[in-house]
Amino acid sequence: MRNITIESNNGSFNYSLISSIEGVIGKIEGILNSHSCFYIVDSNVHKIYHNQFKHLFNQKNCFVLNATEEYKSFDSIYRIYDFLLENNADRSSYIIVIGGGITGDTGSFAASSFMRGTRLIHVPTTLLAMVDSSIGGKTGVNYKKYKNFIGSFYEPEQVITSSKFLSTLKQEDVLSGMGEVLKYALIDSNFFDYCFSWLDGSLDLPEDDLLYLIGKSAQIKNDVVTQDKKDLKMRHSLNLGHTFGHAIESVSGFSVKHGIGVIAGMRGATYLANKMGIMEDKVMEKVLDLLGRYKVDEKINTYSTDSIYLAMQGDKRE
Amino acid sequence: MRNITIESNNGSFNYSLISSIEGVIGKIEGILNSHSCFYIVDSNVHKIYHNQFKHLFNQKNCFVLNATEEYKSFDSIYRIYDFLLENNADRSSYIIVIGGGITGDTGSFAASSFMRGTRLIHVPTTLLAMVDSSIGGKTGVNYKKYKNFIGSFYEPEQVITSSKFLSTLKQEDVLSGMGEVLKYALIDSNFFDYCFSWLDGSLDLPEDDLLYLIGKSAQIKNDVVTQDKKDLKMRHSLNLGHTFGHAIESVSGFSVKHGIGVIAGMRGATYLANKMGIMEDKVMEKVLDLLGRYKVDEKINTYSTDSIYLAMQGDKRE
Repeated sequence: MRNITIESNNGSFNYSLISSIEGVIGKIEGILNSHSCFYIVDSNVHKIYHNQFKHLFNQKNCFVLNATEEYKSFDSIYRIYDFLLENNADRSSYIIVIGGGITGDTGSFAASSFMRGTRLIHVPTTLLAMVDSSIGGKTGVNYKKYKNFIGSFYEPEQVITSSKFLSTLKQEDVLSGMGEVLKYALIDSNFFDYCFSWLDGSLDLPEDDLLYLIGKSAQIKNDVVTQDKKDLKMRHSLNLGHTFGHAIESVSGFSVKHGIGVIAGMRGATYLANKMGIMEDKVMEKVLDLLGRYKVDEKINTYSTDSIYLAMQGDKRE
Repeated sequence: MRNITIESNNGSFNYSLISSIEGVIGKIEGILNSHSCFYIVDSNVHKIYHNQFKHLFNQKNCFVLNATEEYKSFDSIYRIYDFLLENNADRSSYIIVIGGGITGDTGSFAASSFMRGTRLIHVPTTLLAMVDSSIGGKTGVNYKKYKNFIGSFYEPEQVITSSKFLSTLKQEDVLSGMGEVLKYALIDSNFFDYCFSWLDGSLDLPEDDLLYLIGKSAQIKNDVVTQDKKDLKMRHSLNLGHTFGHAIESVSGFSVKHGIGVIAGMRGATYLANKMGIMEDKVMEKVLDLLGRYKVDEKINTYSTDSIYLAMQGDKRE
């Protein structure tokens, strides 16, 4: 077992990256010994892992959430409230959210608002959730046509995860997560050098590389959000490539995954920065070299500049 | 004009108690000069004061909320979200909540969750809201049969109020606010001595006494919540008399106002403390003397001990 613990400013945030899923279960069992726990579990994760988690889950403590944008809604929030009320959860209960970004954002918003906030633990199971959405305390659901428009800032006490979850993830979901990893490379120059030297575009990485990439990305994100909890200034660096990226996602009718849109978006932002004279040619070339190793959906190149520009004007997300 | 400013631990909380309503309006105008403001206004307050506020309010910035328990609900929250969306509010907008506890709790929950939180100012207009609900950041709405079950901790940047609002308040609402003032007297012995010497049960107090009572109560509440933001321990002192009080409210079918239930509840708690041997006879006599100067609804004495005891078992509020 290998643990990476990130110390936060307030000292209360622990990010544990464990090399086995049994290790994750063991850590949850430690909490379960002294507290009542309720699980909000991504339906895909539940399908694959319910056997491994079977001595933790039962009908009274496990809520399975369909992890699609449609269910990132107040309807799901009400169903979670009802589940918690029926099973006598209270403010001292732990809510343990197991899944990707949709489950994390929805489950955490429910946890943050139920009795004005229960205790909260994240178990991210996608690369995107491990390196991005589980860190920084952003919770939220969609409201009408607006994505992530209603939510709160509510940090989990702990994030517990294992790179082993990635073995059952679709390739496009691993690529989507790599989009955010590459974003951290553009924020942190040492990490850029590492990525530039070692990443070749493969999504099938050795265990040790994966652990390093996840741990380092989580550390960089945590450093940024610790300096800017309310997303007022510093944290904007985390939106690198996201204005382009969201527009691409939107033009694709959300068939392009978030992090994949971000890879294409970072390419766009890099060209633009060079054109505006704020990025030298040789820096641009290195950045495009690294980003280019990851092949994004061919159809992105067919979107018209006008449609992307139009979508950027209406970007009301996050 | 007389201002009382309470410094909070984080230095960002200002409580301004102004002797005139024009003074309150002037302070809001100062903010309005440099920010977009949206008002969520108690329907009773709007009826009485809309003429005085008419150069601030218009159809695009003023949401009038029916201030009854029925409207302290997600339906109202959705209507506020829609109002904010239609009028292009964003995270940098100020939401200024003007009214009593229901308007404050509901409006603040909307403000705390819209785009993960806008800027927030409270203008409490009832004595209860001035000395209690506007301080400490508790927001919330009712969910099904559970009162205040969904909400957040979200502190306003400023509280701005005037004792002049009390001149248009019903006598029973002033008495209800006095219930919480008397609770602070039981928490702070110096304040108890002041109240014991100067209060005679009248609800029609001279301006200076009123300013002192409100300012001192707000200070005591702020001191307690600053030490215990999440309501984990210290803050429980603020529930003095509330277990009895909530039970009395409940048995009355909520015809007994909150603070009036608290006065009766503190009498009950005082008798019980004496019976348990943790309050001396002469302390009990002084406490009952002070509480007894405020005449609560006669019908409270007719409720059976059994019905109150039963209601206490089901107390799931706050």
